[in-house]
Amino acid sequence: MSRSLAALFDPASVAIVGASDDPSKWGNAVAVQALRAGDRRPIHLVNRRGGTILGRPAATSVSDIGEPVDLVVISVPATTFESTVDEALAIGARAIVGITAGFAEMGADGAARQRAIVERVRAANAVLVGPNCLGLVDNTTQVYLSSDRFTDGSVALLSQSGNLALELELRVAAHGLGFSRFVSLGNQADVNLVDLIEDCARHELTSAIAVYAEDFADGRGFAVAAAAAFGKPIVALTAGGGEASARSAASHTGALTSSADVVKAVCRDAGVHLVDTPREMAALLASLTTTRRSNGRRVAILTDGGGHGAIAADVAERAGLAVPVLPSHVQAAVADVLWSQSSVGNPVDLAGMGEQDPMSYANALGALLAADDVDGVLMTGYFGGYTAVEEGFGGGALASGERKAGAEIARLVAFYGKPVAVQSMYPGSPSCLAISTTGTPIFSAIEDAAASLAAVMARPLPRGFRSLPAADCAVTEVDYFSSRRLLAEAGVPFPPAVEVSDVDALRAAAASLDGPYVLKALHLLHKSDAGGVQVGIPDVEALVAAHASLHARLDAPSYSVEAMADLSDGIELIVGVKADPRFGPVAMVGLGGVYTEVLRDVQFALAPVPAGQAVDLLLSLRSAALLAGVRGRPAVDVEAAAEVIARITACAAAHPEIAEIEVNPLLVTPNGALALDARAVLY
Amino acid sequence: MSRSLAALFDPASVAIVGASDDPSKWGNAVAVQALRAGDRRPIHLVNRRGGTILGRPAATSVSDIGEPVDLVVISVPATTFESTVDEALAIGARAIVGITAGFAEMGADGAARQRAIVERVRAANAVLVGPNCLGLVDNTTQVYLSSDRFTDGSVALLSQSGNLALELELRVAAHGLGFSRFVSLGNQADVNLVDLIEDCARHELTSAIAVYAEDFADGRGFAVAAAAAFGKPIVALTAGGGEASARSAASHTGALTSSADVVKAVCRDAGVHLVDTPREMAALLASLTTTRRSNGRRVAILTDGGGHGAIAADVAERAGLAVPVLPSHVQAAVADVLWSQSSVGNPVDLAGMGEQDPMSYANALGALLAADDVDGVLMTGYFGGYTAVEEGFGGGALASGERKAGAEIARLVAFYGKPVAVQSMYPGSPSCLAISTTGTPIFSAIEDAAASLAAVMARPLPRGFRSLPAADCAVTEVDYFSSRRLLAEAGVPFPPAVEVSDVDALRAAAASLDGPYVLKALHLLHKSDAGGVQVGIPDVEALVAAHASLHARLDAPSYSVEAMADLSDGIELIVGVKADPRFGPVAMVGLGGVYTEVLRDVQFALAPVPAGQAVDLLLSLRSAALLAGVRGRPAVDVEAAAEVIARITACAAAHPEIAEIEVNPLLVTPNGALALDARAVLY
Repeated sequence: MSRSLAALFDPASVAIVGASDDPSKWGNAVAVQALRAGDRRPIHLVNRRGGTILGRPAATSVSDIGEPVDLVVISVPATTFESTVDEALAIGARAIVGITAGFAEMGADGAARQRAIVERVRAANAVLVGPNCLGLVDNTTQVYLSSDRFTDGSVALLSQSGNLALELELRVAAHGLGFSRFVSLGNQADVNLVDLIEDCARHELTSAIAVYAEDFADGRGFAVAAAAAFGKPIVALTAGGGEASARSAASHTGALTSSADVVKAVCRDAGVHLVDTPREMAALLASLTTTRRSNGRRVAILTDGGGHGAIAADVAERAGLAVPVLPSHVQAAVADVLWSQSSVGNPVDLAGMGEQDPMSYANALGALLAADDVDGVLMTGYFGGYTAVEEGFGGGALASGERKAGAEIARLVAFYGKPVAVQSMYPGSPSCLAISTTGTPIFSAIEDAAASLAAVMARPLPRGFRSLPAADCAVTEVDYFSSRRLLAEAGVPFPPAVEVSDVDALRAAAASLDGPYVLKALHLLHKSDAGGVQVGIPDVEALVAAHASLHARLDAPSYSVEAMADLSDGIELIVGVKADPRFGPVAMVGLGGVYTEVLRDVQFALAPVPAGQAVDLLLSLRSAALLAGVRGRPAVDVEAAAEVIARITACAAAHPEIAEIEVNPLLVTPNGALALDARAVLY
Repeated sequence: MSRSLAALFDPASVAIVGASDDPSKWGNAVAVQALRAGDRRPIHLVNRRGGTILGRPAATSVSDIGEPVDLVVISVPATTFESTVDEALAIGARAIVGITAGFAEMGADGAARQRAIVERVRAANAVLVGPNCLGLVDNTTQVYLSSDRFTDGSVALLSQSGNLALELELRVAAHGLGFSRFVSLGNQADVNLVDLIEDCARHELTSAIAVYAEDFADGRGFAVAAAAAFGKPIVALTAGGGEASARSAASHTGALTSSADVVKAVCRDAGVHLVDTPREMAALLASLTTTRRSNGRRVAILTDGGGHGAIAADVAERAGLAVPVLPSHVQAAVADVLWSQSSVGNPVDLAGMGEQDPMSYANALGALLAADDVDGVLMTGYFGGYTAVEEGFGGGALASGERKAGAEIARLVAFYGKPVAVQSMYPGSPSCLAISTTGTPIFSAIEDAAASLAAVMARPLPRGFRSLPAADCAVTEVDYFSSRRLLAEAGVPFPPAVEVSDVDALRAAAASLDGPYVLKALHLLHKSDAGGVQVGIPDVEALVAAHASLHARLDAPSYSVEAMADLSDGIELIVGVKADPRFGPVAMVGLGGVYTEVLRDVQFALAPVPAGQAVDLLLSLRSAALLAGVRGRPAVDVEAAAEVIARITACAAAHPEIAEIEVNPLLVTPNGALALDARAVLY
């Protein structure tokens, strides 16, 4: 059940506490903005000194307003923030926007004060944005509660940075886009990214959601909300990839699990477009705010120069699009409207025809869009130049021809409804602007055009997320045999093993197991690093000798004697689950041994991971071809491994008291999968 | 000895054959351009119909000019091109620019006609640019022989695409840059990229060379010329990465050697900046045309917003820069000029201080540039906004403060001489323009600023290239034992082996070698695919049995009996050399076995590869950590492997008659390296 944010985005009345006449103060800028809404709703300005502000009488306090107020914006010193919140709640505020800083971002004390405030807000059935935020705008309801004015449009921007929001506004404005809403996330003490995504997903006047977040707060909630919002595309920009890799944890799985990897995995599975820069974000929004989509990735490149075509083909492929040779009937249809010098294979290169008759751009595009074998078109090169710089050249015939071609291209794009993106040396030319009237994005850089097109052609589909299962009882012991038992009860197969602490028990254990044997010293922190594991012990006498040697060296309290698995034709996997502070239990799967250590060839997903998804994770490893068998080796049983991964990750996800758990190696052979070791750590 | 291109870039006189009054003709546009030079040198217009063109009397033919002409531009139908060249040479032309198309690009016939023309040009000691080109411009000598006008500047552009040249001009113009020269490469029948790079490297008014090439022509010459040009930076844009991977050759080495890999390797070793798009090319040129360089990669990020700083840090790291925590004395120096809210660790975040006093941007920058621990600065965020949009806000104080800060930043950059790049939401603002007066590049996108900075901070250094050694005599046989002998004579160590064709010889061979044995069936195309190799044969009787079994199955004409190498603690490498049509012999080294097949973890370099470079190639493999020993295995002798790689690649490079040669595996152990197999293919 998601929360109603109606009081935030369409309040009946607003008060701004800390409003000011001083133009260097935030409370001045926001009051100026708020009043732009005119008579839409009562706006009360509050300043402890009273008097008039912006020519209006100011109340000296919230209580002094004398009537109920729906939404209160608070920009006062931290020392009086709490009492102002109380006053606001007392006069019936259902929403508070906390500009004031000095809470959780300052450390434990601030966090405690913040928690106390949130409790009171929630007890009053109100909602709080911030504190430590820059305000909120809803252009669709004329709620202007930020120091900046944002161009109206259909993108909802949820951002932890004010300056990045300003940059994004400039960037999307270049594509005729603007914001339906802007929310500065601040500390996300109460209303967080999850609440806002849920609300914006329901918001009819929002066509896409843009997120800049450094802290995903309730990460799992974000994942679920984002996946559920599918249909309303989400583009996310985040930071921390570099820093995160430095924050490597002590344990093996931890060292590989950087939060950047987790965010990437979550966005992949939630169908969220994850980008690295504001420029990429704007490029994707330019196409995602249209309704044109394709389920195919086959792009035709249409150009007027060989160089542009070749570069575009490479860039498109790198963006995840396919640039196949066009089928001969499509080539024939395109050739039909061009001249003999033109190339029609793909890229389609007008090769001078555009200079003879600009309408040939439109004619070629029409032939391409009409073809079932073409899912979208990437147009690149000089188009636009004839109206931009060559008015008068050739008596203006080329310019007027190009203008007509632009209008015809706009018509064709609208008619066929397939994704089209344009790179032009003159994106602001009249003929390019004509094309953009249908929402076709025009870019100066080919990489932006390709990325924009790829977002609506090779788009991520949400996989959805399983909720966390509940276990019957909490785990309290995670020594080797306890961990094995826990996993074994969850259906993870292990070779037979017996715990022993003296030689007699060792001999008895050996008699009960088939050789060869494996002997492990237990209750050591890092078994294999300390040389505490011996494998391939052929018989009982060798086992006794191995035990004597190990015991002399390590003096371990006990040992595990195990029947050694047949390793021939087997491949070692690593499977781990580690609790992420934001996203909860995160699974990591990869090829084991040197592949993990040297190549870091691992994949992540939120736990629990169903078997079908585990197959996909395994097959998306760089070294996945090993699983299918190379150099004459048989293929291994990926489904069996995936089923075990599903059980391990479900087990871990059911036990929030486990900080991390790892099966390494998980042996997968042509006939099944077997866990050869287990290790867990409690909080 | 490089060729003199003086007659191209500063001819005493020029004739344009095919000059026209018809504005839709190339010969009109180029004549208009050429005449812009005024009286700098005689310009003769030639059209077979004579009369007047652009108000000047036109000659009816080259011969009709009546005086010697230094450079002749020819834009006539292909059928009369050849005779026009002859006429031009007859009146003493030392340079010809061939616009006319219809030669090598049309197939074998055209190529033959083109070769004949080049022979005559060379016999006359003249030079030819093109044919099938778009002309040539030297802004420094007022040679305007292209249909387009290019802004004057210091970048020499050598391009196989006219439209890309136009796009690049617009892009570099945004940074106040232009072209010293523009040469349309055309078919490179005579004058090629190599000649032009050599000439532009010597050209004092050229500060950087930009290349767009689809065909590197004399690729090895390109590599050598580019490396020799160091000091005059070269930025290369090329295409074909995607397509090339489809053109996979049949053999194993071939399948991995795509020409994109080779171009990448050559650029790396030649110190050439290889880019993927025109936008990236312009970003790099913006810094490379300045004189500011750094040998260190430590960048300080200066921002006025946390979001911009965080994104910039990630982008900078991805661009190859280091964003270390600043030493405490640098933090103290920066803190000294900022307020307490500012972050000074790195990124340095003014956190509102800029809004109080724009000069704090300059003050912080000064403190950073003064620090020995800072090699360069990446500034990002809102700077520029106060002059761009906020004139009047705060009584204009912020705008005028920002303008002063811009001037001070320009002074600081000039004073310290360290690389600085700026990303601004308002790159065209007066205060950003003030900064750019010192050549400091200003970008709208952070990824461009970071790439530009990385080009002058983490720049590639040329390694240089060995010339091809000459062998005493050509190889004519490349069966297994011939290939082994060839490489063994070059100093490549192999295990002892004897060729046998019957059981008696087999027994005799076994007696002469230590077991265990390896038995290989010879004269089969793919030994291991056909199961023609058996390893680990323990003794003579097992060897006889193995032979019988192999012979029954494969009926090979002969077999190799070999002493089996000790594989324990060994790692298998693959070493191959394959002749590239443009770059000559190209070496590939990589981890062998599944690493080659599954991970394509290979590196390329032009052969011969000296041992020192071979070490670098091996250590730059993704799985290089294996060589240093992981999971308790000892490190292998990388130097020994590198020495063998040097010998294999030198041997292959000395034999142009060998199309490809491969040693797979090359076993490297802690104690040395040993070639376990060899295979070669002649042309």
